[in-house]
Amino acid sequence: MIKYPNQSKKVPTAPIVKKRNLKKANLGTDFETKINNSNQYYLNKGIASIYKKPTPIQIVRVDYPARNKARIVEAYYRTPSTTDYNGIYRGYHIDFEAKCCHNTSFSFAHIFTHQIEHLMTIDRLGGIAFLIIEFPIHKEVYLLPAKKLYAKYEQSLKGGKKSISYKEFQEEAYLITEKINPAIDYLKIVDLLIEKKQNEDC
Amino acid sequence: MIKYPNQSKKVPTAPIVKKRNLKKANLGTDFETKINNSNQYYLNKGIASIYKKPTPIQIVRVDYPARNKARIVEAYYRTPSTTDYNGIYRGYHIDFEAKCCHNTSFSFAHIFTHQIEHLMTIDRLGGIAFLIIEFPIHKEVYLLPAKKLYAKYEQSLKGGKKSISYKEFQEEAYLITEKINPAIDYLKIVDLLIEKKQNEDC
Repeated sequence: MIKYPNQSKKVPTAPIVKKRNLKKANLGTDFETKINNSNQYYLNKGIASIYKKPTPIQIVRVDYPARNKARIVEAYYRTPSTTDYNGIYRGYHIDFEAKCCHNTSFSFAHIFTHQIEHLMTIDRLGGIAFLIIEFPIHKEVYLLPAKKLYAKYEQSLKGGKKSISYKEFQEEAYLITEKINPAIDYLKIVDLLIEKKQNEDC
Repeated sequence: MIKYPNQSKKVPTAPIVKKRNLKKANLGTDFETKINNSNQYYLNKGIASIYKKPTPIQIVRVDYPARNKARIVEAYYRTPSTTDYNGIYRGYHIDFEAKCCHNTSFSFAHIFTHQIEHLMTIDRLGGIAFLIIEFPIHKEVYLLPAKKLYAKYEQSLKGGKKSISYKEFQEEAYLITEKINPAIDYLKIVDLLIEKKQNEDC
Protein backbone atom coordinates (compact mmCIF):
# COMPACT_ATOMS: atom_id res chain seq x y z
CA MET A 1 0.00 0.00 0.00
CA ILE A 2 1.35 3.41 -0.94
CA LYS A 3 1.16 5.97 1.84
CA TYR A 4 0.17 9.41 0.60
CA PRO A 5 1.07 12.43 2.74
CA ASN A 6 -1.64 13.95 4.94
CA GLN A 7 -3.82 10.90 4.76
CA SER A 8 -2.98 9.51 8.18
CA LYS A 9 -6.60 9.81 9.27
CA LYS A 10 -7.60 7.15 6.79
CA VAL A 11 -5.42 4.36 8.20
CA PRO A 12 -7.63 1.26 7.94
CA THR A 13 -6.69 -0.15 11.38
CA ALA A 14 -8.64 2.53 13.29
CA PRO A 15 -12.16 1.13 12.73
CA ILE A 16 -10.99 -2.39 13.59
CA VAL A 17 -9.64 -1.26 16.97
CA LYS A 18 -12.88 0.61 17.57
CA LYS A 19 -14.96 -2.44 16.71
CA ARG A 20 -13.06 -4.67 19.12
CA ASN A 21 -13.39 -2.19 21.98
CA LEU A 22 -17.07 -1.77 21.23
CA LYS A 23 -17.61 -5.51 21.43
CA LYS A 24 -15.79 -5.77 24.76
CA ALA A 25 -17.62 -2.78 26.17
CA ASN A 26 -20.95 -4.20 25.06
CA LEU A 27 -20.33 -7.49 26.79
CA GLY A 28 -19.84 -5.66 30.08
CA THR A 29 -22.82 -3.42 29.42
CA ASP A 30 -25.04 -6.40 28.62
CA PHE A 31 -24.19 -7.88 32.01
CA GLU A 32 -24.91 -4.53 33.69
CA THR A 33 -28.24 -4.32 31.83
CA LYS A 34 -29.18 -7.81 32.99
CA ILE A 35 -28.45 -6.88 36.62
CA ASN A 36 -30.31 -3.56 36.30
CA ASN A 37 -33.32 -5.35 34.78
CA SER A 38 -33.26 -7.91 37.59
CA ASN A 39 -33.24 -5.06 40.13
CA GLN A 40 -36.19 -3.48 38.33
CA TYR A 41 -38.00 -6.83 38.52
CA TYR A 42 -37.36 -7.05 42.28
CA LEU A 43 -38.54 -3.45 42.74
CA ASN A 44 -41.73 -4.04 40.71
CA LYS A 45 -42.49 -7.11 42.81
CA GLY A 46 -41.95 -4.98 45.92
CA ILE A 47 -39.35 -7.32 47.43
CA ALA A 48 -36.18 -5.22 47.21
CA SER A 49 -34.93 -1.72 46.37
CA ILE A 50 -31.44 -2.04 44.89
CA TYR A 51 -29.92 0.49 42.49
CA LYS A 52 -26.73 1.06 40.56
CA LYS A 53 -24.98 4.17 41.79
CA PRO A 54 -24.28 6.81 39.14
CA THR A 55 -20.71 7.00 37.81
CA PRO A 56 -18.88 9.73 39.75
CA ILE A 57 -17.95 12.64 37.50
CA GLN A 58 -15.75 15.65 38.30
CA ILE A 59 -17.46 18.59 36.63
CA VAL A 60 -15.07 21.37 35.59
CA ARG A 61 -17.09 23.64 33.31
CA VAL A 62 -20.81 24.10 32.66
CA ASP A 63 -22.39 26.24 29.94
CA TYR A 64 -25.87 27.71 30.21
CA PRO A 65 -27.24 27.93 26.64
CA ALA A 66 -30.58 28.88 28.24
CA ARG A 67 -31.56 30.13 31.70
CA ASN A 68 -32.93 26.76 32.85
CA LYS A 69 -30.62 24.53 30.83
CA ALA A 70 -27.15 23.41 31.82
CA ARG A 71 -24.69 21.75 29.49
CA ILE A 72 -21.56 20.23 30.98
CA VAL A 73 -18.72 20.96 28.57
CA GLU A 74 -15.71 19.75 30.57
CA ALA A 75 -15.76 16.87 33.01
CA TYR A 76 -13.68 13.84 33.98
CA TYR A 77 -14.36 10.37 35.34
CA ARG A 78 -13.52 10.03 39.03
CA THR A 79 -12.57 6.94 41.01
CA PRO A 80 -15.71 5.57 42.72
CA SER A 81 -15.56 5.76 46.56
CA THR A 82 -17.55 2.59 47.01
CA THR A 83 -19.09 -0.16 44.88
CA ASP A 84 -21.54 -0.29 41.96
CA TYR A 85 -24.73 -1.40 43.67
CA ASN A 86 -26.48 -1.11 47.00
CA GLY A 87 -29.94 -1.23 48.50
CA ILE A 88 -32.24 -3.14 50.83
CA TYR A 89 -33.71 -6.66 50.85
CA ARG A 90 -35.54 -8.40 53.72
CA GLY A 91 -34.45 -5.55 55.99
CA TYR A 92 -30.78 -6.20 55.19
CA HIS A 93 -28.42 -3.70 53.62
CA ILE A 94 -27.13 -5.17 50.35
CA ASP A 95 -23.87 -4.00 48.75
CA PHE A 96 -21.99 -5.46 45.81
CA GLU A 97 -19.63 -4.92 42.94
CA ALA A 98 -20.38 -6.49 39.54
CA LYS A 99 -17.60 -7.50 37.15
CA CYS A 100 -17.42 -9.10 33.76
CA CYS A 101 -14.32 -11.29 33.42
CA HIS A 102 -13.14 -12.10 29.90
CA ASN A 103 -10.25 -14.31 31.06
CA THR A 104 -10.13 -17.57 32.94
CA SER A 105 -9.10 -15.80 36.14
CA PHE A 106 -10.14 -12.57 37.84
CA SER A 107 -7.16 -10.32 38.52
CA PHE A 108 -7.13 -8.07 41.61
CA ALA A 109 -6.00 -5.34 39.20
CA HIS A 110 -9.66 -5.10 38.12
CA ILE A 111 -11.00 -4.07 41.50
CA PHE A 112 -9.83 -1.22 43.73
CA THR A 113 -8.40 -2.09 47.15
CA HIS A 114 -10.75 0.42 48.79
CA GLN A 115 -13.72 -1.35 47.16
CA ILE A 116 -12.69 -4.67 48.72
CA GLU A 117 -12.25 -2.88 52.06
CA HIS A 118 -15.64 -1.19 51.65
CA LEU A 119 -17.32 -4.59 51.13
CA MET A 120 -15.65 -5.84 54.34
CA THR A 121 -16.87 -2.76 56.25
CA ILE A 122 -20.46 -3.48 55.11
CA ASP A 123 -20.09 -7.11 56.16
CA ARG A 124 -18.74 -6.10 59.58
CA LEU A 125 -21.61 -3.61 60.09
CA GLY A 126 -24.19 -6.35 59.52
CA GLY A 127 -24.89 -6.01 55.78
CA ILE A 128 -24.69 -8.59 53.00
CA ALA A 129 -21.71 -7.77 50.77
CA PHE A 130 -20.33 -9.66 47.78
CA LEU A 131 -18.87 -9.70 44.28
CA ILE A 132 -20.94 -10.87 41.31
CA ILE A 133 -18.81 -12.01 38.41
CA GLU A 134 -19.70 -13.08 34.89
CA PHE A 135 -17.46 -15.38 32.82
CA PRO A 136 -18.80 -14.91 29.27
CA ILE A 137 -16.51 -17.62 27.89
CA HIS A 138 -18.13 -20.13 30.29
CA LYS A 139 -21.55 -18.45 30.15
CA GLU A 140 -21.67 -18.52 33.95
CA VAL A 141 -22.26 -16.02 36.74
CA TYR A 142 -20.92 -16.46 40.29
CA LEU A 143 -21.49 -14.73 43.61
CA LEU A 144 -18.47 -14.55 45.93
CA PRO A 145 -19.15 -13.31 49.51
CA ALA A 146 -17.01 -10.39 50.73
CA LYS A 147 -15.25 -12.47 53.41
CA LYS A 148 -13.95 -14.97 50.84
CA LEU A 149 -12.93 -12.20 48.45
CA TYR A 150 -11.05 -10.47 51.27
CA ALA A 151 -9.32 -13.67 52.39
CA LYS A 152 -8.02 -14.24 48.85
CA TYR A 153 -6.97 -10.61 48.58
CA GLU A 154 -5.04 -10.87 51.87
CA GLN A 155 -3.25 -13.99 50.56
CA SER A 156 -2.23 -12.03 47.44
CA LEU A 157 -0.67 -9.32 49.67
CA LYS A 158 1.38 -11.99 51.46
CA GLY A 159 2.97 -13.12 48.21
CA GLY A 160 0.13 -15.33 46.98
CA LYS A 161 -1.18 -15.13 43.44
CA LYS A 162 -2.71 -11.84 42.28
CA SER A 163 -5.91 -13.33 40.89
CA ILE A 164 -8.78 -15.71 41.58
CA SER A 165 -9.08 -18.53 39.06
CA TYR A 166 -12.32 -19.69 37.45
CA LYS A 167 -11.79 -23.03 39.21
CA GLU A 168 -11.76 -21.29 42.59
CA PHE A 169 -15.04 -19.58 41.74
CA GLN A 170 -16.48 -22.98 40.75
CA GLU A 171 -15.40 -24.48 44.07
CA GLU A 172 -15.94 -21.62 46.53
CA ALA A 173 -18.49 -19.21 45.05
CA TYR A 174 -22.21 -19.64 44.43
CA LEU A 175 -23.34 -20.27 40.85
CA ILE A 176 -26.27 -18.07 39.80
CA THR A 177 -28.31 -19.92 37.16
CA GLU A 178 -29.41 -17.52 34.42
CA LYS A 179 -33.14 -17.35 33.86
CA ILE A 180 -35.55 -15.39 31.68
CA ASN A 181 -36.84 -13.05 34.36
CA PRO A 182 -35.06 -11.99 36.50
CA ALA A 183 -32.02 -12.82 34.35
CA ILE A 184 -29.57 -12.71 37.29
CA ASP A 185 -31.64 -13.95 40.24
CA TYR A 186 -28.89 -13.23 42.80
CA LEU A 187 -31.31 -12.67 45.69
CA LYS A 188 -31.84 -16.45 45.80
CA ILE A 189 -28.18 -16.73 46.84
CA VAL A 190 -28.59 -13.75 49.21
CA ASP A 191 -31.33 -15.79 50.93
CA LEU A 192 -28.70 -18.47 51.66
CA LEU A 193 -26.26 -15.84 52.95
CA ILE A 194 -28.94 -14.36 55.25
CA GLU A 195 -29.76 -17.83 56.57
CA LYS A 196 -26.07 -18.44 57.25
CA LYS A 197 -25.73 -15.05 58.97
CA GLN A 198 -28.76 -15.71 61.18
CA ASN A 199 -27.30 -19.07 62.25
CA GLU A 200 -23.97 -17.37 63.08
CA ASP A 201 -25.79 -14.73 65.16
CA CYS A 202 -27.63 -17.39 67.22
CA MET B 1 -31.11 52.46 27.76
CA ILE B 2 -30.79 52.18 24.00
CA LYS B 3 -30.90 48.61 22.74
CA TYR B 4 -28.40 48.02 19.96
CA PRO B 5 -29.00 45.09 17.63
CA ASN B 6 -27.03 41.88 18.29
CA GLN B 7 -25.97 42.93 21.77
CA SER B 8 -28.38 40.82 23.76
CA LYS B 9 -25.50 38.86 25.30
CA LYS B 10 -24.25 41.96 27.11
CA VAL B 11 -27.39 42.60 29.20
CA PRO B 12 -26.00 43.81 32.57
CA THR B 13 -28.40 41.73 34.70
CA ALA B 14 -26.54 38.49 33.94
CA PRO B 15 -23.69 38.81 36.51
CA ILE B 16 -26.14 39.86 39.25
CA VAL B 17 -28.27 36.74 38.71
CA LYS B 18 -25.10 34.64 38.76
CA LYS B 19 -23.95 36.17 42.05
CA ARG B 20 -27.29 35.52 43.75
CA ASN B 21 -27.36 31.91 42.57
CA LEU B 22 -23.81 31.41 43.73
CA LYS B 23 -24.67 32.57 47.24
CA LYS B 24 -27.72 30.33 47.42
CA ALA B 25 -25.78 27.40 46.00
CA ASN B 26 -23.03 27.87 48.56
CA LEU B 27 -25.42 27.77 51.48
CA GLY B 28 -26.70 24.42 50.27
CA THR B 29 -23.18 23.17 49.65
CA ASP B 30 -22.12 24.12 53.20
CA PHE B 31 -24.92 21.97 54.56
CA GLU B 32 -23.92 19.13 52.23
CA THR B 33 -20.30 19.46 53.38
CA LYS B 34 -21.37 19.27 57.03
CA ILE B 35 -23.33 16.07 56.36
CA ASN B 36 -20.48 14.56 54.33
CA ASN B 37 -18.01 15.38 57.11
CA SER B 38 -20.33 13.82 59.68
CA ASN B 39 -20.53 10.68 57.54
CA GLN B 40 -16.73 10.63 57.32
CA TYR B 41 -16.58 10.93 61.13
CA TYR B 42 -18.97 7.96 61.52
CA LEU B 43 -16.93 5.94 59.01
CA ASN B 44 -13.62 6.74 60.76
CA LYS B 45 -15.14 5.66 64.09
CA GLY B 46 -16.28 2.44 62.39
CA ILE B 47 -19.93 2.87 63.39
CA ALA B 48 -21.58 3.51 60.02
CA SER B 49 -20.91 3.52 56.28
CA ILE B 50 -23.11 6.20 54.70
CA TYR B 51 -22.27 7.98 51.44
CA LYS B 52 -23.70 10.63 49.18
CA LYS B 53 -24.55 9.15 45.80
CA PRO B 54 -22.87 10.82 42.82
CA THR B 55 -25.01 13.21 40.77
CA PRO B 56 -26.39 11.28 37.79
CA ILE B 57 -25.00 12.60 34.50
CA GLN B 58 -26.03 11.68 30.97
CA ILE B 59 -22.79 11.52 29.00
CA VAL B 60 -23.19 12.36 25.31
CA ARG B 61 -19.66 12.83 23.99
CA VAL B 62 -16.21 11.90 25.26
CA ASP B 63 -12.87 12.97 23.78
CA TYR B 64 -9.67 10.99 24.20
CA PRO B 65 -6.81 13.52 24.14
CA ALA B 66 -4.54 10.62 25.13
CA ARG B 67 -4.94 6.84 24.99
CA ASN B 68 -5.64 6.47 28.72
CA LYS B 69 -7.33 9.81 29.30
CA ALA B 70 -11.00 10.54 28.77
CA ARG B 71 -12.45 14.04 28.72
CA ILE B 72 -16.23 14.39 28.75
CA VAL B 73 -17.09 17.29 26.43
CA GLU B 74 -20.88 17.04 26.33
CA ALA B 75 -23.06 15.86 29.18
CA TYR B 76 -26.28 16.81 30.96
CA TYR B 77 -27.67 16.55 34.50
CA ARG B 78 -30.24 13.79 34.87
CA THR B 79 -33.07 13.45 37.39
CA PRO B 80 -31.88 11.27 40.29
CA SER B 81 -33.75 7.93 40.57
CA THR B 82 -33.53 7.86 44.34
CA THR B 83 -32.29 10.05 47.19
CA ASP B 84 -29.01 11.74 48.06
CA TYR B 85 -27.66 9.47 50.78
CA ASN B 86 -27.75 5.84 51.80
CA GLY B 87 -25.74 3.32 53.75
CA ILE B 88 -25.70 1.10 56.82
CA TYR B 89 -25.80 1.72 60.60
CA ARG B 90 -26.36 -0.87 63.37
CA GLY B 91 -27.26 -3.39 60.67
CA TYR B 92 -30.06 -1.13 59.38
CA HIS B 93 -30.28 0.25 55.87
CA ILE B 94 -30.30 4.06 56.09
CA ASP B 95 -31.72 6.25 53.31
CA PHE B 96 -32.35 9.98 53.30
CA GLU B 97 -32.69 13.14 51.31
CA ALA B 98 -31.04 16.36 52.57
CA LYS B 99 -32.50 19.77 51.80
CA CYS B 100 -31.60 23.32 52.65
CA CYS B 101 -34.73 25.48 53.04
CA HIS B 102 -34.30 29.25 52.70
CA ASN B 103 -37.97 30.01 53.41
CA THR B 104 -40.16 29.54 56.46
CA SER B 105 -41.84 26.54 54.84
CA PHE B 106 -40.64 23.60 52.76
CA SER B 107 -42.53 23.33 49.47
CA PHE B 108 -43.20 19.92 47.93
CA ALA B 109 -41.98 21.50 44.68
CA HIS B 110 -38.43 21.04 46.07
CA ILE B 111 -38.58 17.26 46.28
CA PHE B 112 -39.55 14.80 43.55
CA THR B 113 -42.66 12.65 44.08
CA HIS B 114 -40.64 9.53 43.22
CA GLN B 115 -38.13 10.45 45.95
CA ILE B 116 -40.91 10.57 48.58
CA GLU B 117 -42.19 7.23 47.26
CA HIS B 118 -38.66 5.80 47.34
CA LEU B 119 -38.31 6.77 51.02
CA MET B 120 -41.63 5.01 51.76
CA THR B 121 -40.43 1.88 49.90
CA ILE B 122 -37.31 1.80 52.08
CA ASP B 123 -39.43 2.22 55.23
CA ARG B 124 -41.76 -0.61 54.14
CA LEU B 125 -38.78 -2.91 53.41
CA GLY B 126 -37.44 -2.43 56.95
CA GLY B 127 -35.00 0.43 56.49
CA ILE B 128 -34.75 3.79 58.25
CA ALA B 129 -35.79 6.54 55.83
CA PHE B 130 -36.14 10.27 56.43
CA LEU B 131 -35.66 13.84 55.28
CA ILE B 132 -33.01 16.07 56.89
CA ILE B 133 -33.76 19.75 56.48
CA GLU B 134 -31.77 22.83 57.35
CA PHE B 135 -33.42 26.21 58.01
CA PRO B 136 -30.50 28.64 57.75
CA ILE B 137 -32.67 31.60 58.85
CA HIS B 138 -33.41 29.76 62.14
CA LYS B 139 -30.00 28.07 62.28
CA GLU B 140 -31.74 24.75 62.92
CA VAL B 141 -31.68 21.27 61.39
CA TYR B 142 -34.59 18.83 61.62
CA LEU B 143 -35.08 15.15 60.82
CA LEU B 144 -38.54 14.17 59.53
CA PRO B 145 -39.26 10.41 59.28
CA ALA B 146 -40.49 9.16 55.86
CA LYS B 147 -43.93 8.17 57.20
CA LYS B 148 -44.67 11.72 58.40
CA LEU B 149 -43.33 13.24 55.19
CA TYR B 150 -45.54 10.90 53.17
CA ALA B 151 -48.65 11.63 55.29
CA LYS B 152 -48.19 15.36 54.69
CA TYR B 153 -47.59 14.78 51.00
CA GLU B 154 -50.79 12.72 50.74
CA GLN B 155 -52.73 15.55 52.43
CA SER B 156 -51.36 17.97 49.83
CA LEU B 157 -52.67 15.71 47.04
CA LYS B 158 -56.14 15.78 48.63
CA GLY B 159 -56.26 19.56 48.40
CA GLY B 160 -54.22 20.34 51.51
CA LYS B 161 -51.40 22.87 51.48
CA LYS B 162 -48.45 22.20 49.19
CA SER B 163 -45.75 22.74 51.81
CA ILE B 164 -44.65 21.90 55.35
CA SER B 165 -44.23 24.90 57.62
CA TYR B 166 -41.30 25.51 59.95
CA LYS B 167 -43.79 25.27 62.85
CA GLU B 168 -44.79 21.77 61.76
CA PHE B 169 -41.13 20.75 61.73
CA GLN B 170 -40.76 22.22 65.23
CA GLU B 171 -43.73 20.22 66.47
CA GLU B 172 -43.44 16.94 64.56
CA ALA B 173 -39.82 16.49 63.47
CA TYR B 174 -36.70 15.83 65.54
CA LEU B 175 -34.33 18.73 66.15
CA ILE B 176 -30.67 17.85 65.49
CA THR B 177 -28.46 19.99 67.70
CA GLU B 178 -25.41 21.18 65.76
CA LYS B 179 -22.08 20.24 67.33
CA ILE B 180 -18.42 20.61 66.47
CA ASN B 181 -17.80 17.03 65.40
CA PRO B 182 -19.85 15.47 63.92
CA ALA B 183 -21.57 18.73 62.92
CA ILE B 184 -24.88 17.03 62.06
CA ASP B 185 -25.10 14.12 64.51
CA TYR B 186 -28.24 12.67 62.94
CA LEU B 187 -27.46 9.09 63.97
CA LYS B 188 -28.50 10.06 67.53
CA ILE B 189 -32.01 10.58 66.17
CA VAL B 190 -31.73 7.39 64.10
CA ASP B 191 -31.09 5.57 67.41
CA LEU B 192 -34.52 6.79 68.59
CA LEU B 193 -36.13 5.67 65.32
CA ILE B 194 -34.53 2.20 65.60
CA GLU B 195 -35.78 1.91 69.20
CA LYS B 196 -39.29 2.87 68.06
CA LYS B 197 -39.13 0.37 65.18
CA GLN B 198 -37.99 -2.43 67.48
CA ASN B 199 -40.91 -1.69 69.86
CA GLU B 200 -43.35 -1.79 66.92
CA ASP B 201 -41.91 -5.14 65.75
CA CYS B 202 -42.35 -6.70 69.20
